[in-house]
Amino acid sequence: MFCYCRAVTSKRKQTRRSDCPLNVSLELLGDRWSLLIIRDLMFRGFRSYKELLESEEGIATNILANRLKRLEGCGIINTSRAESDRRQLIYRLTKKGIDLAPVLLELILWGARYEETAAPPAMLRKMEKQRQKFLSEIQRRWADESGSMLLRK
Amino acid sequence: MFCYCRAVTSKRKQTRRSDCPLNVSLELLGDRWSLLIIRDLMFRGFRSYKELLESEEGIATNILANRLKRLEGCGIINTSRAESDRRQLIYRLTKKGIDLAPVLLELILWGARYEETAAPPAMLRKMEKQRQKFLSEIQRRWADESGSMLLRK
Repeated sequence: MFCYCRAVTSKRKQTRRSDCPLNVSLELLGDRWSLLIIRDLMFRGFRSYKELLESEEGIATNILANRLKRLEGCGIINTSRAESDRRQLIYRLTKKGIDLAPVLLELILWGARYEETAAPPAMLRKMEKQRQKFLSEIQRRWADESGSMLLRK
Repeated sequence: MFCYCRAVTSKRKQTRRSDCPLNVSLELLGDRWSLLIIRDLMFRGFRSYKELLESEEGIATNILANRLKRLEGCGIINTSRAESDRRQLIYRLTKKGIDLAPVLLELILWGARYEETAAPPAMLRKMEKQRQKFLSEIQRRWADESGSMLLRK
């Protein structure tokens, strides 16, 4: 019924374990850090390497550098130079990256439902009861910010 | 606005990197294999170690054994003995496990949207346009099967 995978055939994809869409997503995101970096960019507005490095899970600098490179390589984030200091890199989610919002939302809801976490009940209620509104707000905020970035260029 | 995390305080959780619900979910599921095992149990009806081992991504037997143990340890799957052969273990998703369906769905949709995959368009459309119906069917099939398991015991 749900057999949506087949043997990998095309040359380009021979390095993939399979071309099941779940597998492909996990090949890009299946580790303990990538989605935390995306959370910090999406929900917290972190933009600099320093902010990401100081996030509370305590990511090591070599892992952070590696993950940022990988996320940029697969088009989930992009980098630009800070206006105030051209030496400083600014990290932002692309459209492909911001479209991970539903994945993060479901992982947050599941974690909060089954484990002891610090998720505020009001936010969880909004995520669950007003799912579409919550996701639209994330998209709109991202679009506004990307738009203002473009105007400044 | 979305600051839902705080420092870890309780003793029980001192081994966690933080008590952010996303982090907690990733500590349980954040690797390249766990959600594939859950996919095989959820969508394909795999029940035995052998079936899981032969899934097309080619999981190594030591990794499969390790992940099954971890998933059972955190209550996502449970094991029982096969009626036909009491030496054989049967793996099934718990309620906590089947409630990962929305996470899998979103990862599948995202992967199919942005990468080249083998996802059939009809299934993707159903996942997207009839999301709730799709998820309800998964829940109902799981409940039916769990019910019939209970009756046979």
